[in-house]
Amino acid sequence: MTTRIEADYVLETPGSPEAAAEAIAGEQSSGTFVTLPGETPELRERSAARVEALEVTGTVPQRSLPGRSMNGGDCTRARLTLSWPMGNTGPDLPNLMATVAGNLFELGQVSGLKLCDIRLPEGFAAAYPGPKFGIPGTRELAGVADGPLIGTIVKPSIGLDAGQTAAVVQELAEAGIDFVKDDELQADGPNCPFEDRVRAVMRVINEHADKTGKKVMFAFNLTGEIDEMRRRHDLVRELGGTCVMVSLNSVGLSGFLGLSRHSELPIHAHRNGWGYLSRGPMLGWDYPAWSKFWRLAGADHMHVNGLGNKFSEPDESVMRSARSLFDPMFEDKPCVPMPVFSSGQSAVQPPETFRQLGRADCIYAAGGGIMAHPDGPGAGVRSLREAWDAAIAGVPAETYAKDHPALAAALKAYAK
Amino acid sequence: MTTRIEADYVLETPGSPEAAAEAIAGEQSSGTFVTLPGETPELRERSAARVEALEVTGTVPQRSLPGRSMNGGDCTRARLTLSWPMGNTGPDLPNLMATVAGNLFELGQVSGLKLCDIRLPEGFAAAYPGPKFGIPGTRELAGVADGPLIGTIVKPSIGLDAGQTAAVVQELAEAGIDFVKDDELQADGPNCPFEDRVRAVMRVINEHADKTGKKVMFAFNLTGEIDEMRRRHDLVRELGGTCVMVSLNSVGLSGFLGLSRHSELPIHAHRNGWGYLSRGPMLGWDYPAWSKFWRLAGADHMHVNGLGNKFSEPDESVMRSARSLFDPMFEDKPCVPMPVFSSGQSAVQPPETFRQLGRADCIYAAGGGIMAHPDGPGAGVRSLREAWDAAIAGVPAETYAKDHPALAAALKAYAK
Repeated sequence: MTTRIEADYVLETPGSPEAAAEAIAGEQSSGTFVTLPGETPELRERSAARVEALEVTGTVPQRSLPGRSMNGGDCTRARLTLSWPMGNTGPDLPNLMATVAGNLFELGQVSGLKLCDIRLPEGFAAAYPGPKFGIPGTRELAGVADGPLIGTIVKPSIGLDAGQTAAVVQELAEAGIDFVKDDELQADGPNCPFEDRVRAVMRVINEHADKTGKKVMFAFNLTGEIDEMRRRHDLVRELGGTCVMVSLNSVGLSGFLGLSRHSELPIHAHRNGWGYLSRGPMLGWDYPAWSKFWRLAGADHMHVNGLGNKFSEPDESVMRSARSLFDPMFEDKPCVPMPVFSSGQSAVQPPETFRQLGRADCIYAAGGGIMAHPDGPGAGVRSLREAWDAAIAGVPAETYAKDHPALAAALKAYAK
Repeated sequence: MTTRIEADYVLETPGSPEAAAEAIAGEQSSGTFVTLPGETPELRERSAARVEALEVTGTVPQRSLPGRSMNGGDCTRARLTLSWPMGNTGPDLPNLMATVAGNLFELGQVSGLKLCDIRLPEGFAAAYPGPKFGIPGTRELAGVADGPLIGTIVKPSIGLDAGQTAAVVQELAEAGIDFVKDDELQADGPNCPFEDRVRAVMRVINEHADKTGKKVMFAFNLTGEIDEMRRRHDLVRELGGTCVMVSLNSVGLSGFLGLSRHSELPIHAHRNGWGYLSRGPMLGWDYPAWSKFWRLAGADHMHVNGLGNKFSEPDESVMRSARSLFDPMFEDKPCVPMPVFSSGQSAVQPPETFRQLGRADCIYAAGGGIMAHPDGPGAGVRSLREAWDAAIAGVPAETYAKDHPALAAALKAYAK
């Protein structure tokens, strides 16, 4: 286990990679662009960031990001690892962000920079909650011992009032769903106030649980200011709800920690806005680095998109993100959340998802893949469960479909 | 004044701009990628986002951002304005972010998307504090009635202990500085705990004020969790401090609001991390859109970089950002913060900065431009003030320098 904070980057520079690496290390610790009288050898020893590794991987004929001038011809790419002493920040997530992802992406020496991964000293493990529920706690509350939680999202995303939302949930509960979530657009708007929605939806969920013994897990989007989020969390818990949802990029780390330290329910962490953080191939964040902030801060469920999704993200990136969530952050505190697959999912993708994930510990969410099933939502949910059962049993979906009509109909309807 | 939420984008698409615009509007309101039974005309009327304007501006031979496939040939660029009804979110900044900057940058139809500006209905003005001090409040607390506040940053950025930091502040106070800030890397680390630093620095500042009548404004970086930030704010205020600083991208909107609603001091809003949000030419955020979230949430000072900076940002972008802060957000609540110029500044840039800004309402921060002045920090501060005095008086710096030796020495030392 590292005793210093470490961060891995992919760097591109029009100049010398060594000089660019030192410029980043200096800018992010005790140096600056001129030599300073106060920067003594003792101070540097105590506080300077170190270049731990720098490996040139190739050159590109054109810079990826514009600079003050576009001159420069070929640029060099390299893998870079920096480290910082704990004395600079202590185990402090918000200030860690300014250290590993602050004023470095815009440096003049940099024509591309992506933060790929971070590794943190043990001190961080003690300072933060991590997921309070994670995979086992979510399974217990949802009553799903094995296989994925089959999930969906209330649609239309926004526009339904509280009663209409509850009616949709009623239909989904009767269809046998395990998990439902609010859309990230739906929080506490005048057309569907949070409290009204929670009361109406929990009435449906509690009645269904009384009748069948199955309590659907509903992730209520409580995104808002700290005091609002805590109040909303308490309301959900009082009414017997089992999950809350929050938009990470809307509330930020300190906002999220204000909720997570208070929370007694699994937190469904929504990554909307992830596109602007990640879609530049040589700019911003890779998922393993970014998700570790939220994992340690207490995210129980984390979105990873899905195979064959409707967005621009390639399948390879989706699965790399999902698998990274299972990497333990610390020996005694792995901080493993449940990955959430979604976007354009149906009974078609489970075999490949399972094969690449290596396990079934996930929330597997489909919209049209459930609601638009030719035999209705009940068959939609069944078809997803059957597709996963087949994958876990190692049986080809087409074979399994022979005596599972819901799966058979889905494979026909959703074939690409 | 608009009655709907409006957002302006620059869009690039490999397909039809009309289709891409409708896809974004649908994804960010009541639509999705399949037609839904619940999406009634009445619901659409109530909740759908609208394409208010779409103007094709040209084509490019290659897509800016990768997608699931790189096919497509020419891409079209367009200016796009969308609007949303207030009924969806109400006046709610965190959820506004998910609406205007959520799951849209990664849409398959989009090969480039930048959020340029937003306009908000009056309801938002009543719901949020805006800057409590802004330009007049900052001037009053700093005792600077006219011209810029001449500022600097404690250097080395990190590594000094509390006593060493106070010694640097002593030197700067004696040099006649108006404003000093912590580095964004320096918050509450073991080597320089927040409380020790505040006590040591405020002793120096208060003694200097007692002696000279001038109280230097020091922005203490209190970035942290909500309760920590509030406690730290209270300590600064108790000891007679006049400013606190926070890293916006570390704490997030809900974290920031937890501080700003509590705060009784000007909030110096640091944008470190801005590079990953903005440096992709066809991805992410433009400053006017992004800064409006923080202006309305209560930022009193906002960073805008500087002319001839050491980063990659072009001068034109710096001045566009700075000027945008003076655009009123609402008729009765303009939410105008003080722009903060910094990075590689010296007595060289004030004339052009003033010419392009059209006013002197700013914090003008220099590091080497003060500390490395050939005649010492006192002459460094004087040279900056003289450069601004000359600019405001409409006198060429070289003329003014004839009987202002500090300026004369600076122009010689820092000439590019």
